[in-house]
Amino acid sequence: MTPFEIAEKLVSKLDSMKLKIATAESCTGGMAAQYITAVSGSSNVFEYGIISYANRIKAEKLGVSSDNLERLGAVSAEVAKEMAKGAAIGGGADVGVSTTGIAGPTGGTPEKPVGTVFISVYYNGESYVKKLELGALSERQKIREASVFEVLNLCYLVLNGEEQINKYRE
Amino acid sequence: MTPFEIAEKLVSKLDSMKLKIATAESCTGGMAAQYITAVSGSSNVFEYGIISYANRIKAEKLGVSSDNLERLGAVSAEVAKEMAKGAAIGGGADVGVSTTGIAGPTGGTPEKPVGTVFISVYYNGESYVKKLELGALSERQKIREASVFEVLNLCYLVLNGEEQINKYRE
Repeated sequence: MTPFEIAEKLVSKLDSMKLKIATAESCTGGMAAQYITAVSGSSNVFEYGIISYANRIKAEKLGVSSDNLERLGAVSAEVAKEMAKGAAIGGGADVGVSTTGIAGPTGGTPEKPVGTVFISVYYNGESYVKKLELGALSERQKIREASVFEVLNLCYLVLNGEEQINKYRE
Repeated sequence: MTPFEIAEKLVSKLDSMKLKIATAESCTGGMAAQYITAVSGSSNVFEYGIISYANRIKAEKLGVSSDNLERLGAVSAEVAKEMAKGAAIGGGADVGVSTTGIAGPTGGTPEKPVGTVFISVYYNGESYVKKLELGALSERQKIREASVFEVLNLCYLVLNGEEQINKYRE
């Protein structure tokens, strides 16, 4: 399945459930929203997205805690969770999704190599978060595409209430 | 030139001028930000983008006047200008760019057919706005791609101080 195809499935699912989604993106830089809005009729389910590339923006516009940004770094499970929740609450949406990671080619460290991405989904008061290790994809744009696919897919699985989401609930 | 190539030129130009850019997107739904952030090193020049798909979000998050939204509609020169300025000011950036239009296939009217898009650039206290008529491209995604190309290109021309920008200054 392509990112566009999972976006189509997700938009249709949201529409049938009468839910609205908001996006908060760091490393994917608008690509998740781009795929959602590539689906005709997505305006029924999507009203607001934010690209919070700088830490300052994550704190100011999404309410991410400065303490978490300093202590854990922007590329962390906690920050991903706060971003998804912040997008949903800030945008008056039912569901929030987020991405934060290192798409490369620069910016990697031994602890967080290129391709380390955290994705999160916030729905119904619960947070789901998943760590991706996409270094093998090598290219910046491929890492971003895979991250978008993963977060839209995780969101779909959450809305569908699938068993496998339990291991990502935090 | 492709949208990615103009994004590369623009990021390089912004970097050399030590300027930061913010994006406010309606019909392009994150695609302009996606192309900017596809360029490695774009974090030097890009910190914040917003996808304001709903009118409510244009008003709340970008300070677009509700009067303009009601009287002129979201797809108008005035709203495009307010979005670009709102993105720059809201994100603490030097430059703001915006898109608002009808990517189709639905949503067109006799006055504003599918492919009607307004793009705007805000820089140095001045606003530039251009109306695009892209109906001949037919497909939603092609209309969006062309809109992104046009707004990134207009921004580049403005930063480069080219003569032709004068006809878009408002």
